[in-house]
Amino acid sequence: MPKQVDHAERRQEIAAALWRIVTTDGIEAASIRRVAAEAGWSAGSVRHYFETQGQLLAFALELVSERVAARIALLPAEDDPRRRAGSLLRELLPLDAERRTEMRVWWAFTTRALVDPALEPLRHRAHDDLRQLCLQAADALGAADVALEGERLHALVDGLALHGLLAPDVTTPERQGALLDAHLAQVGA
Amino acid sequence: MPKQVDHAERRQEIAAALWRIVTTDGIEAASIRRVAAEAGWSAGSVRHYFETQGQLLAFALELVSERVAARIALLPAEDDPRRRAGSLLRELLPLDAERRTEMRVWWAFTTRALVDPALEPLRHRAHDDLRQLCLQAADALGAADVALEGERLHALVDGLALHGLLAPDVTTPERQGALLDAHLAQVGA
Repeated sequence: MPKQVDHAERRQEIAAALWRIVTTDGIEAASIRRVAAEAGWSAGSVRHYFETQGQLLAFALELVSERVAARIALLPAEDDPRRRAGSLLRELLPLDAERRTEMRVWWAFTTRALVDPALEPLRHRAHDDLRQLCLQAADALGAADVALEGERLHALVDGLALHGLLAPDVTTPERQGALLDAHLAQVGA
Repeated sequence: MPKQVDHAERRQEIAAALWRIVTTDGIEAASIRRVAAEAGWSAGSVRHYFETQGQLLAFALELVSERVAARIALLPAEDDPRRRAGSLLRELLPLDAERRTEMRVWWAFTTRALVDPALEPLRHRAHDDLRQLCLQAADALGAADVALEGERLHALVDGLALHGLLAPDVTTPERQGALLDAHLAQVGA
């Protein structure tokens, strides 16, 4: 009987190898060849899953989304909508090494997506997922104009994430949290 | 008598050639070789000014800063600090093809600067220039906590610029303006 290939398991192996590279040497180091070496596979086997560098970056971004979603699912229950929004949106800010790595992956993916139409749908989906979170938060906070306040919150969160990545000495983790909370205090107030 | 080379004039020639390429084919197309061809120079002559692709990107970002500063200098006098801040910050949002091109240049430069320490000082300066503008606006608007409101405005403006670049169908130029004005209405109010 031929050996059944467990694709979900192999995908997990690649994901683990990819994430080890991204964490130690950065997303720039994550080539198909390098992922293959790290996983102990041939480059051809990895190419069975990802034909191009763009597809590998898309996979890396999907891992980021899964990681964020998993952390959000583990957040303790919180009835206060302002504190809930604050906890939830913090999972998307580069407040520690893990989230800074995720942000770098997002940047690398987006850089590629800006010139690779095949990556556009995933790029839009990632953008829209956060937009929806922010619209829901604005709604839960009783904003009079949910669309306006949700989109404004979305811009603020992405701007804070950018500053946390680009100017971490000024926009420190503590400062990111303080700015987010100051903003949330005004939504629907 | 040997011919005097007018470096300022030659710099302007390169700048014009570089900007033509960036406008028609995007910043990704702006290699030293391509700039040389566009200016009618040898690649070696261009390398006299820029030895690396990173230096060329730095020059492109300097052009963006000069263009923004020139537009701001031309803004009509405006006594109302809220309207003044609104006009001024609009020059930094991707509200038309010209400003979208500038934003793409910023993105390309920043992508390079994230892995090229030689570009760090310019990256920090560009970041800090907008930060100072936002702090001044928050001060002029009478914010109780100028640092907090200025940094929050900075995050909002960069987030809006990002969304204008990445999701122009949702975060249209009109929407960017509306979100900026809604935010400015609350600063110091």
